[in-house]
Amino acid sequence: MNSDISSDMQKRDFVVVIGREYGSGGRRIGKQLAKELGVPYYDKSLLQQAAARLGYSPKIFENKDERRPSIIRSLLSFTYGSTVAGANDSSLSDEKIYEFQSRVIQDLCAKGSCVIVGRTADYIMRQHPGLISVFIHAPLEHKVKHIIERGEKQAVEDAKSLSLKIDREREAYYNYFTNRHWGRCSNYHLSFDSSITPDDTIIATIKSIITSRN
Amino acid sequence: MNSDISSDMQKRDFVVVIGREYGSGGRRIGKQLAKELGVPYYDKSLLQQAAARLGYSPKIFENKDERRPSIIRSLLSFTYGSTVAGANDSSLSDEKIYEFQSRVIQDLCAKGSCVIVGRTADYIMRQHPGLISVFIHAPLEHKVKHIIERGEKQAVEDAKSLSLKIDREREAYYNYFTNRHWGRCSNYHLSFDSSITPDDTIIATIKSIITSRN
Repeated sequence: MNSDISSDMQKRDFVVVIGREYGSGGRRIGKQLAKELGVPYYDKSLLQQAAARLGYSPKIFENKDERRPSIIRSLLSFTYGSTVAGANDSSLSDEKIYEFQSRVIQDLCAKGSCVIVGRTADYIMRQHPGLISVFIHAPLEHKVKHIIERGEKQAVEDAKSLSLKIDREREAYYNYFTNRHWGRCSNYHLSFDSSITPDDTIIATIKSIITSRN
Repeated sequence: MNSDISSDMQKRDFVVVIGREYGSGGRRIGKQLAKELGVPYYDKSLLQQAAARLGYSPKIFENKDERRPSIIRSLLSFTYGSTVAGANDSSLSDEKIYEFQSRVIQDLCAKGSCVIVGRTADYIMRQHPGLISVFIHAPLEHKVKHIIERGEKQAVEDAKSLSLKIDREREAYYNYFTNRHWGRCSNYHLSFDSSITPDDTIIATIKSIITSRN
């Protein structure tokens, strides 16, 4: 079935971008989708490698996860009672880094169809006629289970704190750079609760849209 | 295909609830889904008939669309420069009406599988183990085209105003009674932009979840 769909899709390039809550399985689904479609998959570490190949410094994806810019992070450290890792660790401004990241993503998408996870790629690629923007989420208890299964944390409370903290950072990062609201249906073409939607169903739905457009 | 899926699904009752932006085609999709699944479909007018059959006054679904409660609506009339139809037109309080509507919806769902559009049914039925909650949305220009095609308005500006006004009311109504945020991914199991997702794909995705649960 995959090869049939892949051959049907040559007519028009597509870019599937996946935003996700931490622990919801967005990366796993993105990887599997890219594999089935036979197109490149990019997340933070693969974007870093791609940046180097395109002649950018790989530093632009280094130590800069999806967090609020440094100045806001410094203020946040008062609010949340701890310093936030990665603040003020670069001579490049956050806006400059975001601009470079955006260029890398645009350059990669100009080369052909691909799947990208995170980095506000839905916003960066909003003008692409083949964009399919997806958001994956799940109830907290499902994400906690997933985080523990992946071996990132052992205790439920630790997994819960990690999930909530990273999502707070992602939300702040997304809202700051895009002027949109992270996790709002109208930003995305599709959203799925991965605790009740099988991966195969998510992948089939995305493929079906790609096919219907061509 | 429909009959195969329908026969597979007898094992466990499901309730598909559909929230939607005005003009996005949510009712059309809900009706088609119910037809294919062979289960009852309910929207405002059908809930009114059902209320009567269940021994409630049909008035509880009358002149009370998904709007903020009267007292807030009276205040809103200053903000929006017009009086809002339906305010203070009943001896029942808005909270009481909402409570009756909730009971009708719960009674109908207790009878077996069904599809319900609107009325915060996703929130009312949140404890139902077979709940599938869906949100349908679309870009404004798509909704405007749809509203004009349905013959509700002729001018683009009028269709745009109508769409924005009704969605503002739905959002306020939903947020007031549920204490959630209307149109936020995490409230729903699935969301679809109906301007790029074919009705068949939306219906197939929902059916696939129902099948995977049984």
